[in-house]
Order: sequence, then structure tokens, then C-alpha cells
Amino acid sequence: MSGHARIGLIGLGTMGAALASNIAEKGFDVAVFNRTTQVTRDFAENAGDLAPKITPTETLDDFVAALSSPRAIILMVPAGDPVDAQIEALRPLLDDDDLIIDCGNANFHDTDRRVDAHTGPFLGVGVSGGEEGARHGPSIMAGGDTEYWGRVEDIMTAIAAKHDGDPCAALMGPGGAGHFVKMVHNGIEYADMQMIAEVYGILRDGHGMDYDAIGDIFAAWNKGPLESYLIEISGKVAHARDVATGKPLLSVIVDAAGQKGTGRWTVIEAQHRLAPVPAIEAAVVARNLSARLQERAKGQSIFGAAPQAWDGLDHTTLEQGLMAGKILCYAQGFEMLSAATRDFGWDLPMARIAQIWREGCIIRSSMLDEMATALDAAPGVNLMFTDHFAAILKDTHGALRQVVAQAALNGHPVPALSSGLAYFDMMRTARGTADMIQGQRDFFGLHGFVHVNGTDDQHGPWAKEACDPHC
Amino acid sequence: MSGHARIGLIGLGTMGAALASNIAEKGFDVAVFNRTTQVTRDFAENAGDLAPKITPTETLDDFVAALSSPRAIILMVPAGDPVDAQIEALRPLLDDDDLIIDCGNANFHDTDRRVDAHTGPFLGVGVSGGEEGARHGPSIMAGGDTEYWGRVEDIMTAIAAKHDGDPCAALMGPGGAGHFVKMVHNGIEYADMQMIAEVYGILRDGHGMDYDAIGDIFAAWNKGPLESYLIEISGKVAHARDVATGKPLLSVIVDAAGQKGTGRWTVIEAQHRLAPVPAIEAAVVARNLSARLQERAKGQSIFGAAPQAWDGLDHTTLEQGLMAGKILCYAQGFEMLSAATRDFGWDLPMARIAQIWREGCIIRSSMLDEMATALDAAPGVNLMFTDHFAAILKDTHGALRQVVAQAALNGHPVPALSSGLAYFDMMRTARGTADMIQGQRDFFGLHGFVHVNGTDDQHGPWAKEACDPHC
Repeated sequence: MSGHARIGLIGLGTMGAALASNIAEKGFDVAVFNRTTQVTRDFAENAGDLAPKITPTETLDDFVAALSSPRAIILMVPAGDPVDAQIEALRPLLDDDDLIIDCGNANFHDTDRRVDAHTGPFLGVGVSGGEEGARHGPSIMAGGDTEYWGRVEDIMTAIAAKHDGDPCAALMGPGGAGHFVKMVHNGIEYADMQMIAEVYGILRDGHGMDYDAIGDIFAAWNKGPLESYLIEISGKVAHARDVATGKPLLSVIVDAAGQKGTGRWTVIEAQHRLAPVPAIEAAVVARNLSARLQERAKGQSIFGAAPQAWDGLDHTTLEQGLMAGKILCYAQGFEMLSAATRDFGWDLPMARIAQIWREGCIIRSSMLDEMATALDAAPGVNLMFTDHFAAILKDTHGALRQVVAQAALNGHPVPALSSGLAYFDMMRTARGTADMIQGQRDFFGLHGFVHVNGTDDQHGPWAKEACDPHC
Repeated sequence: MSGHARIGLIGLGTMGAALASNIAEKGFDVAVFNRTTQVTRDFAENAGDLAPKITPTETLDDFVAALSSPRAIILMVPAGDPVDAQIEALRPLLDDDDLIIDCGNANFHDTDRRVDAHTGPFLGVGVSGGEEGARHGPSIMAGGDTEYWGRVEDIMTAIAAKHDGDPCAALMGPGGAGHFVKMVHNGIEYADMQMIAEVYGILRDGHGMDYDAIGDIFAAWNKGPLESYLIEISGKVAHARDVATGKPLLSVIVDAAGQKGTGRWTVIEAQHRLAPVPAIEAAVVARNLSARLQERAKGQSIFGAAPQAWDGLDHTTLEQGLMAGKILCYAQGFEMLSAATRDFGWDLPMARIAQIWREGCIIRSSMLDEMATALDAAPGVNLMFTDHFAAILKDTHGALRQVVAQAALNGHPVPALSSGLAYFDMMRTARGTADMIQGQRDFFGLHGFVHVNGTDDQHGPWAKEACDPHC
């Protein structure tokens, strides 16, 4: 028995409800199911004009029966065990060729595992853009077989955000590729947000600006090369007032950042891939330390408050420093994607990834349009070496130096920006300082080194003495 | 059948041979075995005065038979699968109560697994100090049951390094605790070496000093508060000459640092423990980037060489900056040990750890003696907040600021030192900038925030608009 709904969706939480509404709005019949039936009923009752396109169901059997064959079912349940439990509950009710699509925030290793389990057609799809994106057009990063993607591509492109008409939805590669790309997206998001927060701190504590003035700065920057969703909302956040007290919203938010773990996933995976992402690491560290409210207060009582007032930097220097930091952060993210292509035998479509991040997702920005062009013109090249961004970096790294130096002198922590600068300077130094590290390693561990004459397994003069008679 | 040898050792590579000699020298009869028999024969033939204490064996059966009961057998084989293979080959030949001691560089998760497998008495023991340490006195960090440790404690303390007569050997806790502490030791070692390399770069490229002069600086610093094995050998490395060409050794070493993975293990595990170790992360990143020789040369061709000559910093400022950076790096390492105590229900002996790191291991230093005293007096306190080190940081953080600022302005990458400074400033700022991050997260994801009035799950004024009719 098969029904008329083109697609099904399980899990009517914030994101699932928004996505189901989006699908219905685009003209596709969608059957929905939620573990708690009342949630399904409420969703259906509030569907308004979309109601004719929505089939609410109250049992999994009814849900499956409502779908046309071969079925396609989106899961929007919490990542981890609930996804496995849902798949296990669902598969016995399905035909062999029915497709399950996990649109949750899965760890890509889990997606790989679920694909490898071969319990039936499966796609792992990263969806970015928060509730607003899910409702009106997210960025969609799919992973799995081309054939399965082909079955739902029309729906996915219809509901996705558009950039000049181009849908921000694409197949990234097999298995967990979609969730991998989404993970790196989130890592970049962490670093982008942290860099903005660092500049915010300089404006607030260094320049002594009030929140509205800071909001004005971000609003102005959003009309220039930094134009992006995150800069835009930073301005709105700075301008916002606390509903209860009427005070500036930022002034009433406890400065302890939460995290759902995707930033941490990114930096752990980057270590396994030998893909340095120091800006993302710095952002994760900053969130962790932000949670240590008592220890930080103790530190202030011992050492005095860190950030000193100073206004030696004009806003253009800050803007350009943030631009340079942002480019270097994205360069690291794209390099991590390249590492995955190499390690996993994927062929991640680098320029296409930049394209589908141009709209819908949290890190959408005008710069991503330029990145798409740059990566398309120079495949496989580190973003910082592409003509366009190398030119910007030449113009702006001096500003980043000023920001990092003045922040260091005046007690403003800028871990992400300074890590970006260190990355830049390491990546442009032909002769670095690892000769000392290799010398030390050879001294204490006889690890050997490569000689500049090209021979390897060389040792320092201590090799003979260190070698006792027994070795 | 049981023999007379008090202990056995399998694996006569560099470290194993040195350890076996050390054991014999301290008066314990030791039976040895190596997979390749010729290695065993060579070892025995070259044993000299130690020969009477050494029983070379050529089969596992003979090896086991040579040991007194209950047996104690040290494995010094490569970490990973070879250890499991060796255990599997050995257990059938042993009595139930015989003890296997893995003294290799095991991942502590593997040690935990091997203990949990309950195939028989097992200790996982971290040994630091390179070949020299293994031969003449390493630092020994043991993990496992107190009873098993008791069986070999006399041997372990006899072969260990001594600090004013106090052996640098101790039981850290159950299961993988010993290898965990050794892993963190190695992570700290990475960061300490990287910070030294960063200062070396400033002396070489900023101050334009030749290698001998740099060696003199390190030698001088080794007589002051930075006195340590790593500073000492940095001076020796800088003074050393290439045997083949007679040129300064450092000038002929390719600046691409190798790594055996323990630094990476540390930063991955730190992420799982939510224990920020940014200085170690920076060191791992620096090693990874150092290997990208071609890309770095390309970067230099595009942007010009990064490090500019400058001599604005006197040596005392560099010395003090390095002191501050080092303290902050060690503070992070000890915080990671605290996190393990919390997460794993261990009771890692923090002050004792500092004590057994005072001699024998690669990171041995006079400062570790001060750290032992500080952590003993203030258990559970972040090292940077202890009276002694807070006082040093008050005196030296200004120098660290100068180093980071001048390095930033002059193109010298100092990722570890700058991450140390950012850690310091974040840990002494009661009111940070994560309010902006929480504001952003609430804006795009309705993640909520804690209000300064103490109520949580608060939302900004956008919460209502963002909530579409279907949610």
C-alpha cells in the first residue's frame, strides 16, 4: 500500500517543523510524524494555507502508508542514538528500495557507519541556516549515492536558499561527505563568530564605545567587504534591548558561550587529517574558557582586569584586520576539506561548496561568492594563495598585525585573530624554525633529521656519544 | 619451572636496550628477549661488566623459564598492535599471576583496554627521558593496581632518575593513568619546544644573531630561572657543527618537524576533556605546517619573506616572555590532568607528578621543582593562580606582551607564545566577550542565554518574530 505524499518527515522540533513547512510551501505533499502525537496535531492545526499539502500521521504505520513509492523519508530527530533507533523502527515497515535521509546534525562518522551498514538506501544531509533557514531556504550539503540524491534533488533544490537563482544545495560526495562539509562549515562558523567577538571586545573595552555605537559599526561594515549574515546579526544583537529591563541586550547576557559540540568535532577531525585549523581551535578554547566564570573572576582579582582602554586603532584598521583574519580562517577550513578529499578518496567540489554557502547558511557572505570564483579558477590552491585573496591579504595583513599587537599590549585576548596571523606568517616563511625542534628531537631521542643536502636520517655530532656500548 | 631472573624485558631496541642495561646496572637480574635473535646476541656480547646480570634468551619459552615466579615482564615493543600481539603470544606461557608491564609509548586508551581485558596482571608505565634517560635514569609514570606496582616498585625506583635522592617514579593511578600522564608530559614537551623555537626565530631572524651567539644566549638562560634540559640542549644544538660540512648544525637541518603522534593524542584528548591546551595545539599546528615546505616557499614568493630584522627587544625581555609563556603552558597541562581526575574518577597526584618530572624526563627543569611546591601548597588550584607563579606572571606578562606584539608587527610567527598570552588574558577577564557569541547563537538558533539576573533560557527580542506560526 502506498499513499500520495511525495516525501515524509519525522521529528517536528524547531528545525523539522520549519523544514516540513518549507517543503509544503514549495508544493510537495509531505507526510509528517512526531513521537509525541500532540506535537503533530499542533503542527497540522497551525499549518494555515499549507494544510492541504501536509498529511499528519499518528503512527509509524500510517506515516509509511501515506508515502508514495519508492518512499523518501527525512529524519529530523536529535543526532546520535535517536537516529539509529528511528532507523531501526522504520526499516521493517519499508520496502527495500525506500530511502531514509538524515537531515540532522549527525557526526559524519555515524553517517559513514549507517551507509556502510547497508540496511537500505540512505543519504546524510547537512542543513544549515537555523530555523529561519530551514523555513525559508537553508544551505543543503548532501552525502550519499548519486542515484538516491537524484530521487529528491528536485525537492532539495526547491527548498534550498537561492543565490541569483542558483540553489544552495548539492551532493558533496559519498557516505558522510555531506555531514563532513557541514561539520567544517560549523567549525568555520565558530572561528568567524570568535573573531567578531574579539573585535567587539576591542570596541567595547578598548575604545570604550557603547553598544549602540558598536552596532552602528557592524551595520556599516555590513555594507562593505565584510558583508555577511554574522556581521549583520552582530549589529542587530548590539542594537537590541533586553525585553525585561530595557537595557542593551549584550549587557545582560552572561558571557559564557554554549556549544553543541560540532566545533569540537571539527578540531578533533582536523587533527586526524593533519589539517591545521588553529583559528577554529582558538574559538573552541575561547568558548571553553568563557564557561569558567568563577576562575576568570579569580584571575581578575589576582592580576587586575586584563583589557585596558585604548583607542589607537581606527575602525578601518579593525575592519581590515577582521577581513584578513576571516580569509585565513576560511583558508584553513577549505584546506581541511582538501585533506578529506585526499584521505577519504572523496572529490569534494570545493568551488561548489563555496557557492552553496553563499546563501542560506550561517556563514553566508559576499566574500563566499568571491571564494567560489577564486576556488573555481584555481582548483586545489590554498585560498590565501589565490590571486584575489592574496591581493586582499597583501592589503590587509598589516592591519591584522596592528590589531594583534595592540591587543597584546593592552590586554585584549584575540586568540583567533592572532592564530590567523601566525598561520599567515608560517605559511609565507620558506625557512622556519623547526630546524631547532628537529635538532632537539635528534639530541634527546636520536630521531634524525633531513639534511639540506637532501639526505635523510642524519644525526648531530652527539649521535656517537649518545650511543652507549649496548646499542 | 622458574628461573632466577627477577625481571624480564622484551624488545631490545634503543629504549629497551638502555632500560635493560639500567636494570642490570642497579643489580637486578634481567632476562632479555628480542624477536630478532641477533639483536639479543649483540646486546649480550656488548654487555661488558653488566653481563653477569643479563640472561639473553632466544625463544619465548626460554625467556619465561628464566624468570623467577611470580614473573614480571617489561614490554618495550612498538606501541599499538605489536603490544597486543606480544601479550597474546606471552600469556599462554605464563602463570595467572604473572605481571606484564608495558613500558612503551602506549595510547592510554589502549592501556585501559588491556587492563579491562583482565587477561592477567598488567601495568601501563610511561617512561620519559629518551635513550639517555632510559639508560641512566628516566622519569617513570605508572598506571595500574597498587599491588602490581608494589611488586616492581623497588626496581622502578632504583632505575629512575633521582632528585636530591627522591626517585622520579610513582604510581599515578589505575588503568591508563600512567600513560595518560606521560601523554600530557609529551604535549607539554611539544609546547615548550615550540616556544623555544619561536624565541630562537626572533634571535636568528629578528636580531640577526649567528648560531653560536644564539647558543650563548640559551646557555646563559640555562643558569637562570629558565634552567631546564630543553634550554640546555637548545644551546648545545645551536653550538653544534654538522659533522660532514663543519657548518652550524642548525643551518643544515631542514625545518620540517617530525612527530610521533603523542602531541596530537594530547590535543584530541584535551578536546574530549573540555580542557583547553591552546599552547599544545599551537605546537602541533606548527609542526604540521613546518612539513609544508613547498607551500611555504610559495607563500614567501607571493607575500615576501615574513620575518623582518629588528632588534627592539633586549634579551631579558625575551627571557621573561619565555618564562611567562612556559608557566602558562604548564598551567594548561596541569589543568588537563585535573580534568582527567574529574572525568575518570582518578586521583592524580598533581604535586607528585611535578616532582617526578623534575629529573629524568625531557621537560625536567628547576621550575618543575617550584611547581611541585606550589601545587603541594595549593591542591586543585590552577598553577597560574598559585602565589609563587602568580607573582612571576605579574613580573613577566608585560615582557610576553612585548614579544607577541613585536613579533606580530615584524612577521615572526609566535603561535604558542601568543596563545599563551591569550589564555592568560582570558583567564583574568571577569567580563569577556562571549556575550556576543551567545547573542549571535540566540539570534540564529534560538539557543537561549543566561541573563545576568540569574535566569536561564532567556531570549532576545527576536525570539517572537523568529518563531513562525508553525512552531
